[in-house]
Amino acid sequence: MVYVTRRATFSASHRLYNPDLSEAENIAVYDKCSNKNGHGHNYTIEVTVAGEPRKGTGYVIDLKKLKEIVGREIIERVDHKHLNADVDFMQGIIPTAENIAIAFWKILQPKIQEGRLFAIRLHETENNVVEYRGE
Amino acid sequence: MVYVTRRATFSASHRLYNPDLSEAENIAVYDKCSNKNGHGHNYTIEVTVAGEPRKGTGYVIDLKKLKEIVGREIIERVDHKHLNADVDFMQGIIPTAENIAIAFWKILQPKIQEGRLFAIRLHETENNVVEYRGE
Amino acid sequence: MVYVTRRATFSASHRLYNPDLSEAENIAVYDKCSNKNGHGHNYTIEVTVAGEPRKGTGYVIDLKKLKEIVGREIIERVDHKHLNADVDFMQGIIPTAENIAIAFWKILQPKIQEGRLFAIRLHETENNVVEYRGE
Amino acid sequence: MVYVTRRATFSASHRLYNPDLSEAENIAVYDKCSNKNGHGHNYTIEVTVAGEPRKGTGYVIDLKKLKEIVGREIIERVDHKHLNADVDFMQGIIPTAENIAIAFWKILQPKIQEGRLFAIRLHETENNVVEYRGE
Amino acid sequence: MVYVTRRATFSASHRLYNPDLSEAENIAVYDKCSNKNGHGHNYTIEVTVAGEPRKGTGYVIDLKKLKEIVGREIIERVDHKHLNADVDFMQGIIPTAENIAIAFWKILQPKIQEGRLFAIRLHETENNVVEYRGE
Amino acid sequence: MVYVTRRATFSASHRLYNPDLSEAENIAVYDKCSNKNGHGHNYTIEVTVAGEPRKGTGYVIDLKKLKEIVGREIIERVDHKHLNADVDFMQGIIPTAENIAIAFWKILQPKIQEGRLFAIRLHETENNVVEYRGE
Repeated sequence: MVYVTRRATFSASHRLYNPDLSEAENIAVYDKCSNKNGHGHNYTIEVTVAGEPRKGTGYVIDLKKLKEIVGREIIERVDHKHLNADVDFMQGIIPTAENIAIAFWKILQPKIQEGRLFAIRLHETENNVVEYRGE
Repeated sequence: MVYVTRRATFSASHRLYNPDLSEAENIAVYDKCSNKNGHGHNYTIEVTVAGEPRKGTGYVIDLKKLKEIVGREIIERVDHKHLNADVDFMQGIIPTAENIAIAFWKILQPKIQEGRLFAIRLHETENNVVEYRGE
Repeated sequence: MVYVTRRATFSASHRLYNPDLSEAENIAVYDKCSNKNGHGHNYTIEVTVAGEPRKGTGYVIDLKKLKEIVGREIIERVDHKHLNADVDFMQGIIPTAENIAIAFWKILQPKIQEGRLFAIRLHETENNVVEYRGE
Repeated sequence: MVYVTRRATFSASHRLYNPDLSEAENIAVYDKCSNKNGHGHNYTIEVTVAGEPRKGTGYVIDLKKLKEIVGREIIERVDHKHLNADVDFMQGIIPTAENIAIAFWKILQPKIQEGRLFAIRLHETENNVVEYRGE
Repeated sequence: MVYVTRRATFSASHRLYNPDLSEAENIAVYDKCSNKNGHGHNYTIEVTVAGEPRKGTGYVIDLKKLKEIVGREIIERVDHKHLNADVDFMQGIIPTAENIAIAFWKILQPKIQEGRLFAIRLHETENNVVEYRGE
Repeated sequence: MVYVTRRATFSASHRLYNPDLSEAENIAVYDKCSNKNGHGHNYTIEVTVAGEPRKGTGYVIDLKKLKEIVGREIIERVDHKHLNADVDFMQGIIPTAENIAIAFWKILQPKIQEGRLFAIRLHETENNVVEYRGE
């Protein structure tokens, strides 16, 4: 078993806001992250696939292919977008890093057909990181 | 002469859009950077002050003081904000990295009173950086 | 289950020295790390909390709150300090990276009340890292 | 149980090529990675050893000793080399990152006698990483 | 005047070898860098263009356009190549970092038509960097 | 003219303290940086040499040679040391980053005999950097 990871980046904006709460409650929970006009990040995503290297190629999954999958399924749909307003699969979801990672997992998990998706790691800033393993 | 640099980070969103151009022209110039709902970045700012270390302290400028100035004058006014909508000193300015760096220079230059402001370096992503030296 | 991580840094000095050993034995074990006047590092700590994102907030634990806990319980007590001489909770402990990580775990584990503390990762230099998971 | 990691770097070239496949098949599988004259990388290796810190030293394994083992057993044999042509233990192995990590594990595992080897992490580029844990 | 920089990466192999010197002299000068089968690096290039932001766009040069120029003129010609054997514009040039940077300058300088090329910075490893400014 | 840079790191402790000032004045100026037992950093030094690449070698200065000079003249004398107590050439100098960089310049400038020393850049933390060019 080898774990192979592909890193990618995208730039997006978001706003943390729960429509079931009042404005005051949103500010109490999310503080400046709930500013009405949103703010943004350079997100870094690390997608890890686990499996055995194939005899003929020495690859668990060709990282060029993993790059294409991540690019087509994730990056093209979120890069230079507003996660709340512009991204279909984030509708009705509060875009915390935790929820974004889970949403990415749901999209990528069925698309990985060599090896199996093991982890999604999402860096929101250089100090804030989340990881989801489908557990 | 020694050049001392303080690094800081902030997360903001912006939209590249020139109101004097048509929608089609904006897309031709700015492409996905002109998406209506904006997108965002983790910006890194590096502020460089040039001067001679003082005899009594060995400091050009106390970096704790420089941190406070950058924090109060810049970070508090842009962090977790939409640069086009929320930031007073960016009104009427297209928020390219070039223009943001020049705007920061205008604010910081009169506030630096030990040594003199030498450069503002602004990283928009890990691949895009601009520097302004007041020239 | 999502793993959320907050990174923080502090600058401290330490000396590796076992008072039960002779000077010669200390040098044999710790070499230049046992220099009498100590040396120092910019330590980076990564604190990982595991849990399920809450329905109402989308947070496992608010990373602003985790930042505050790490700042108050750890950073304020070790930053710009000598770990052997100045830090109460390191008394009687040889401040190897391993032992520092375990000491931090003991302090933080009872303070984390949303999710549970999963790992403490401590970077002593860019080449030396330790991780403790309470196992 | 504490996990201690030592990072090291080396610069090498390699070519991905399976002699059991035709030229056309090699290009179909490996694309530009199969260019006849090879290409190269600054590889970063992270070697993780798991164990309990010893009472007398506070070390799982002295990281200076781990540095020496990794230097002697790995870095000296691969740094500034062509992995296909110059490295004895890579003969007959397609030098994908996966296979290199497994080969390093086989060499290092018997050499680690304090604690036990837990993981080999190999960064081929800033975007491509593999990890092998002997599973 | 603003300095705008675009970063890009490529992976290549090279061999330092002067055909006018004997084998022994090459080893005396280049040591392991002259190994017959070559070795490789993940090179990072930073291309800096100096100029005034244009009134209508706020750009010195559109960084997307600079990315395209660097990609087409440099990265496509050197990525996953052997610099001595595969790259036309390096024929007859010893591929030290200094000489590679000068070669890149000669190619890029006439292609930059908004602003003017100010510097080429080339990182060979995390410890070795060169910069050429056409002086 | 090409600028070549070699990066190196060392770990040291220091205390900012001016013996001509009272305790209270030292605290007013240096705050926690004047703690009696000192604190420490992982310093990163970047040494830049300017010159023309030589015809026969393509080197301004062999970076292996520059590494040796920096190692012997600087790193061996400061690594794992207390800059105030253990380092001869820092006696009588308040070890601010500014003053350390100037002290390194004085040592290295006469030792660089291919090209000329152009800059010493010293990173005290990831946020604090100074540069001295002998001006």
